[in-house]
Amino acid sequence: MNPITMTTQIDPLLLQALREDISSEDVSTNAVIREKTPGQVELLCKERGVIAGLAVFERVFQLLDPEVQVEWFHQDGEQVEAGTHLATLRGDIRALLSGERVALNYLQRMSGIATYTRACAEVLRGSKTKLLDTRKTTPNMRIFEKYAVRVGGGQNHRYNLSDGVLLKDNHIGAAGGIAQAVRLARDYAPFVRKIEVEVENLEMVEEALAAGADIIMLDNMSMEEMREALRRIAGRAQTECSGNVTLEKLRALADLGVDYVSCGALTHSAPILDLSLKHLRPLEAK
Amino acid sequence: MNPITMTTQIDPLLLQALREDISSEDVSTNAVIREKTPGQVELLCKERGVIAGLAVFERVFQLLDPEVQVEWFHQDGEQVEAGTHLATLRGDIRALLSGERVALNYLQRMSGIATYTRACAEVLRGSKTKLLDTRKTTPNMRIFEKYAVRVGGGQNHRYNLSDGVLLKDNHIGAAGGIAQAVRLARDYAPFVRKIEVEVENLEMVEEALAAGADIIMLDNMSMEEMREALRRIAGRAQTECSGNVTLEKLRALADLGVDYVSCGALTHSAPILDLSLKHLRPLEAK
Amino acid sequence: MNPITMTTQIDPLLLQALREDISSEDVSTNAVIREKTPGQVELLCKERGVIAGLAVFERVFQLLDPEVQVEWFHQDGEQVEAGTHLATLRGDIRALLSGERVALNYLQRMSGIATYTRACAEVLRGSKTKLLDTRKTTPNMRIFEKYAVRVGGGQNHRYNLSDGVLLKDNHIGAAGGIAQAVRLARDYAPFVRKIEVEVENLEMVEEALAAGADIIMLDNMSMEEMREALRRIAGRAQTECSGNVTLEKLRALADLGVDYVSCGALTHSAPILDLSLKHLRPLEAK
Amino acid sequence: MNPITMTTQIDPLLLQALREDISSEDVSTNAVIREKTPGQVELLCKERGVIAGLAVFERVFQLLDPEVQVEWFHQDGEQVEAGTHLATLRGDIRALLSGERVALNYLQRMSGIATYTRACAEVLRGSKTKLLDTRKTTPNMRIFEKYAVRVGGGQNHRYNLSDGVLLKDNHIGAAGGIAQAVRLARDYAPFVRKIEVEVENLEMVEEALAAGADIIMLDNMSMEEMREALRRIAGRAQTECSGNVTLEKLRALADLGVDYVSCGALTHSAPILDLSLKHLRPLEAK
Amino acid sequence: MNPITMTTQIDPLLLQALREDISSEDVSTNAVIREKTPGQVELLCKERGVIAGLAVFERVFQLLDPEVQVEWFHQDGEQVEAGTHLATLRGDIRALLSGERVALNYLQRMSGIATYTRACAEVLRGSKTKLLDTRKTTPNMRIFEKYAVRVGGGQNHRYNLSDGVLLKDNHIGAAGGIAQAVRLARDYAPFVRKIEVEVENLEMVEEALAAGADIIMLDNMSMEEMREALRRIAGRAQTECSGNVTLEKLRALADLGVDYVSCGALTHSAPILDLSLKHLRPLEAK
Amino acid sequence: MNPITMTTQIDPLLLQALREDISSEDVSTNAVIREKTPGQVELLCKERGVIAGLAVFERVFQLLDPEVQVEWFHQDGEQVEAGTHLATLRGDIRALLSGERVALNYLQRMSGIATYTRACAEVLRGSKTKLLDTRKTTPNMRIFEKYAVRVGGGQNHRYNLSDGVLLKDNHIGAAGGIAQAVRLARDYAPFVRKIEVEVENLEMVEEALAAGADIIMLDNMSMEEMREALRRIAGRAQTECSGNVTLEKLRALADLGVDYVSCGALTHSAPILDLSLKHLRPLEAK
Repeated sequence: MNPITMTTQIDPLLLQALREDISSEDVSTNAVIREKTPGQVELLCKERGVIAGLAVFERVFQLLDPEVQVEWFHQDGEQVEAGTHLATLRGDIRALLSGERVALNYLQRMSGIATYTRACAEVLRGSKTKLLDTRKTTPNMRIFEKYAVRVGGGQNHRYNLSDGVLLKDNHIGAAGGIAQAVRLARDYAPFVRKIEVEVENLEMVEEALAAGADIIMLDNMSMEEMREALRRIAGRAQTECSGNVTLEKLRALADLGVDYVSCGALTHSAPILDLSLKHLRPLEAK
Repeated sequence: MNPITMTTQIDPLLLQALREDISSEDVSTNAVIREKTPGQVELLCKERGVIAGLAVFERVFQLLDPEVQVEWFHQDGEQVEAGTHLATLRGDIRALLSGERVALNYLQRMSGIATYTRACAEVLRGSKTKLLDTRKTTPNMRIFEKYAVRVGGGQNHRYNLSDGVLLKDNHIGAAGGIAQAVRLARDYAPFVRKIEVEVENLEMVEEALAAGADIIMLDNMSMEEMREALRRIAGRAQTECSGNVTLEKLRALADLGVDYVSCGALTHSAPILDLSLKHLRPLEAK
Repeated sequence: MNPITMTTQIDPLLLQALREDISSEDVSTNAVIREKTPGQVELLCKERGVIAGLAVFERVFQLLDPEVQVEWFHQDGEQVEAGTHLATLRGDIRALLSGERVALNYLQRMSGIATYTRACAEVLRGSKTKLLDTRKTTPNMRIFEKYAVRVGGGQNHRYNLSDGVLLKDNHIGAAGGIAQAVRLARDYAPFVRKIEVEVENLEMVEEALAAGADIIMLDNMSMEEMREALRRIAGRAQTECSGNVTLEKLRALADLGVDYVSCGALTHSAPILDLSLKHLRPLEAK
Repeated sequence: MNPITMTTQIDPLLLQALREDISSEDVSTNAVIREKTPGQVELLCKERGVIAGLAVFERVFQLLDPEVQVEWFHQDGEQVEAGTHLATLRGDIRALLSGERVALNYLQRMSGIATYTRACAEVLRGSKTKLLDTRKTTPNMRIFEKYAVRVGGGQNHRYNLSDGVLLKDNHIGAAGGIAQAVRLARDYAPFVRKIEVEVENLEMVEEALAAGADIIMLDNMSMEEMREALRRIAGRAQTECSGNVTLEKLRALADLGVDYVSCGALTHSAPILDLSLKHLRPLEAK
Repeated sequence: MNPITMTTQIDPLLLQALREDISSEDVSTNAVIREKTPGQVELLCKERGVIAGLAVFERVFQLLDPEVQVEWFHQDGEQVEAGTHLATLRGDIRALLSGERVALNYLQRMSGIATYTRACAEVLRGSKTKLLDTRKTTPNMRIFEKYAVRVGGGQNHRYNLSDGVLLKDNHIGAAGGIAQAVRLARDYAPFVRKIEVEVENLEMVEEALAAGADIIMLDNMSMEEMREALRRIAGRAQTECSGNVTLEKLRALADLGVDYVSCGALTHSAPILDLSLKHLRPLEAK
Repeated sequence: MNPITMTTQIDPLLLQALREDISSEDVSTNAVIREKTPGQVELLCKERGVIAGLAVFERVFQLLDPEVQVEWFHQDGEQVEAGTHLATLRGDIRALLSGERVALNYLQRMSGIATYTRACAEVLRGSKTKLLDTRKTTPNMRIFEKYAVRVGGGQNHRYNLSDGVLLKDNHIGAAGGIAQAVRLARDYAPFVRKIEVEVENLEMVEEALAAGADIIMLDNMSMEEMREALRRIAGRAQTECSGNVTLEKLRALADLGVDYVSCGALTHSAPILDLSLKHLRPLEAK
């Protein structure tokens, strides 16, 4: 993760999460450890998966105490096995204890998403079809979750409502038709945006093509219809499939030759990857 | 959800999530809908589950446009079936479109947690054992997730590091023993806190009892050990079981007669509940 | 301006500007006007120009006092003459006095940009060439300035570094060539982004075409070179001219048939439009 | 610029501006430069002018990456010629690229204001008349713009509504006369404020003198009237001229012997000074 | 208190204080009162004093619930006796309970300051000497405390370091003498500031007069020295006494004929005024 | 004070206080000291008392300039005499001058509270009764004031409404009795909270005992009643006395054998401890 993104976007969110978990002070730790106490602890992976978010994990501790140091034995994107020793952290035990939960909450979720995305991406391997995420992310977690998708081997769809144009049936209805909606969007939106149109049947596919859509999203259409739609589009627009995409359905979609498949489950349904801090022990102060 | 909690805690998070999704403006909507356009849309449930977060869902739209009105047909805590029409929203179509994703992202996650919690709580029904959540929540989502646990029938463990004392092995090690750790905590922590001690074997149970712990958490112990621990504690402290609690294991734990079982999966592994906005259509302005 | 953009993006900036101008209180007004005093004042235009930002102007006062009402006689995008009575404001005189300067500071600058943009856009009228702004905006004023460009008849280039890809010589150098840079960008960037490449000579034009760039920006090239570049591109990519674009040069660029001309001066050098509040007088309370 | 002002006031504004330009990440840079890459770039001045804001320019980069170093060859307040090499920046190329636009947007505007102010101040050289700015600044840019005025040789009028008392016709009307308004202001305002009264004719001058105003502002009066006003005031109050002050009019005002002339154009109409970063190139890592 | 000051300055501080007292939710209230419950409660004064801060008190509740209404029987600045019924509040009992402590914490402190200030101001009654506060205020409470001083009959010295110039011995030493320091300050500070110089002996008085100081502060000088200082100043500058001013010493200072006496104790040592909410009872919903 | 608490909770409050005192810049200091000027100054105690807040005092300066260094001769909790030299600060004189007032405002108030608390705690020495604070703290100062109470020898009651359950008469009334209120609170509140019930007579004591309250607060009861209440409770719940607790009354309460006495005056009525910075002088730059 780029250090500039870290400074401008990530740090405020991490501090907010730390304040969510420490609204006045860490009472347990402060009660029993009154002085700076050097120590170390190990980060272990407890199940097989793809790691994502190491820089975020490390940053949580460094926001609490800039002297915490993390020695990494693996990096983002690696698949690791249960029992893998991922890193050793060294620093004031109070920072290690007070930051543990927040740091793990991030790392577990991000690694869970990367793991699930990797599984989906594997299905598509060898095809021309690429895997996309959606805006179905956890509120105030988007930058972490979209990053984890990339680590897992997916690509990002638009980041938010401001940086991509996607005309859905409601936009089309309000505009009075696809042609009209695309024209309005080209006039209004920054010209570096591609215009994507969501269609539900073959008639709409034709209209979208005629309107010059850059991307056509086939939403909840049958395999048969999608095959015909792709035949008609014939490369004149990029194509995306969407709607209840499961691991099973992915291969069939790839066989159709669609350019992109988007999958909300990457971010809203991936289970976490189980990780923990173990073997905390004091170190001799140097 | 209490309106005061909404104002003091929830609104800033909702606005932040809206700004995450609208960093400058909703380009698609603003391109095609230039004027205020009254309309309505329906909130549908697409699978069986327990609803949680209706007030949050509604508030997202009202932050965008105070005139949006939601007619509710169900309320938090109800179990609904696939296809249930949960509510009808009426207001400026631009607010309905621009707020849709953020509102659903909250409601789906909260309802998913309530649904999963309800399933766990059902297993415990009839026993004295109560279900607890943990601090394994999504960063900056805790207040929503802890609420959803309560809606689902669970109880909340401490909210964060500041409002509960839980002495783990590292605290105990740093203090030089359980007795010492409990004494330090009693001196330091606000006196309205109960003191909870995490133990891993029977010897520690005895020490915790001797130290006067209010709550003893049996962490990752075998069924056999836990049974013996509960026999020795004999009501002199409240008891909690923790560690890889699954739906299957829950019944056995209840049979042991422990007071509380805490389960991280309630908040970190519950799949979302599938919901969507459908049938948006313009209304005649009055 | 969309009310949702107003709530999510504009309000915090307006409040910040009000706090910049009122760091404790408006001492002069509070010294002499101790009670709520209904009054009205007129907004006058003191020179010929295009008005932009009326909703922002109005919002400044309503943030200070929700009861302030503005009766508008003109709207954004209209060209008005010196002496035009644009609006009448009614409300507590204290709000009218305390908000005056901030409201005018916004409106004058936005109208100045719209006026200057309109003049540039007029030169391009009848050609296929469209006028674009740049990121050379005043810090923390971008959303206002980009809006004013649209009101004036220009279009917006990318909003910021996050929502558009523009590969400049330094990116190309770091990547090891245009082909490589475009490939990396296609892999990394959200797929809804067009990829724009900045070129400085004909050789780079060929490379950009070969790499499949969506947009080719001709930077600081001579008229002759640009003519040849456009001949070679021949519609295979969109084209943009950039670099010291003056009102005089605009017509010649349009004659070349380039798709877009971007002009930093729209936002960094447009003089303000002179406006003022006049004829404040008390009203009988109703 | 004082480092304490920098920390307490400037940093939050710079970070906000950086977040305006990087709402999620710098996609172009992050796509092609995946690792820390030491490099350098030169800051060049492209037209004649007075430099202001070097510390702000430098700080923008250091907020992104504390290791960026700037070697300065000139300092704030110096007049430089087109082509001057102002500084060399060294650091991670990603920080140099991602911070470039925001840093230049500040420096160009501040230097533009200093250049314009210097031109005005030169006209007054040798006279007793001093040049003042106004509150007609760009929203959320006041601290930068007022600093630039000082660098250019002007002085600052009040910073905002809270730290200076200026009684205008509306205040006077509300109070029931100049004497009454001055009395109310003396009672209410912190006693370290001077009381300034805006007058429009000779009768009001007499009243302001009688009321003991510390400063009398002659607003939009003719040269003839101002001459007479100054004659009557005869040093019993400080004097300020205001209203459509142009470079041409400045000399005549100085000849009148007024103490201060305030000029809104310093901050609202100064064109930017053209500056750019050039010759970026990688450096061998040390 | 001016509603504009309330919106721009006070509201954020009140919300912050409410969040300090409600970091997740009001557990006691939410546990027992699940629904909106109309009720009323009385604000009583439990000892003799001067009331200040009623608008702040009311605003705390309205931030929690805009429907809370307060019927006032007294207003800021009135002296009331023990047992006085100051107001009746009506609204949702949950808002009355959750806001009670924060609202009282403000009102008690502000009223305590107003009461103490009134006592000091009474001593000066009939003399020309006016009572001033200082910057010895509670952090993040200044706007409330300075307002309370005015309600009590004092005047405000400068608000903060930015809006007043006070040259102390360290500034004078750094500048190389009073004349030099005053000259530097006149050049640098906004010209609407008076220049105040702190002096410790008669020699410094002479220097300050020669330098043209607007205000001379006699710091920790003996009565004898102050008398002589005032004789020499003879109206050529305003005069202020400072340093361990007690109620007893005030009268003597007034007799000297000094213009102002500043007293840190007004804000740092005034005991609170005892107030409480009593007789809460449910109301029939209408 | 724990450095993690400092980073997550204290720093934002200190920066806010610094911005309250420096809304644009420290005009006096910046006018006369244009360059970094190394210097030192001494922190002196001017009256007898207990010091609390040294880390906060130091942090204020380091936020302004990380190079400021403080050499401490005493530490939090020590009782010092008038004239004690507490510390020597070394750093840029501008930081020493600009931070002085804010740093002292914190240290004086915190030390005042510690001093007053120590006096109260001394009265209880040798008894089993412990001294508690309340929520009657200064808004936005709670974390400082509760810390000072601990330094002085008191203990903290609940931190805020979210982390402790205290059922008062209004809660009890709304619930329909003590038994009902305690039951609702046990169901709703995180189970690590103790349940405290406020009682006003012996009947309520019996009800609270029957309901299983963890703590019973005897509010405004007579000595006689309290003695009887404690006799009946007989260790079955913890006990707290509250209501107009004065230094005089404390000893009598201890003799009763109550567990805790809470005293609002610790935080709302403790006078400040007089401290000052003296003997500022430049140092040779090294």
